[in-house]
Amino acid sequence: MNTQILGLVAGACTTIAFLPQVIKTWKSRSAKDLSLSMFSIFCLGVTLWLVYGIMVKDIPVIVANMLTLMLASTLLYFKLRFKE
Amino acid sequence: MNTQILGLVAGACTTIAFLPQVIKTWKSRSAKDLSLSMFSIFCLGVTLWLVYGIMVKDIPVIVANMLTLMLASTLLYFKLRFKE
Repeated sequence: MNTQILGLVAGACTTIAFLPQVIKTWKSRSAKDLSLSMFSIFCLGVTLWLVYGIMVKDIPVIVANMLTLMLASTLLYFKLRFKE
Repeated sequence: MNTQILGLVAGACTTIAFLPQVIKTWKSRSAKDLSLSMFSIFCLGVTLWLVYGIMVKDIPVIVANMLTLMLASTLLYFKLRFKE
């Protein structure tokens, strides 16, 4: 398989993965089992990846991390909002 | 900040982030709020990143994704094991 396509599919998976979690947490209104530390550190890391992508002018890194940041920060917000 | 250091810190954050979630889920024995789809798709994506890293011979990509895969697959196992 072409390595560039492999990288794109890999990036799509690790980004899209957060979508079912967002949907599940939104529907259940329950974020008890989600770790606040995990989503805090993860959002920080994805923000740094985004800055890195901008600095090295890598469009796939920028796009993937922008989408991941939107989904992961939504989960962080849910964790803070849904106290259950 | 040096871009290479920024990339390393970003990678460290998105990898280490899964550790507090593993500890929390192990202690609580509860994975009800974790999405099975999220961790399945995420593990697949990280595996593809690992293959990508091996193909392009990128040591940081290999190491970061190997560690992330260990932590994320542990969470997938917990999700399947702890039915609560």
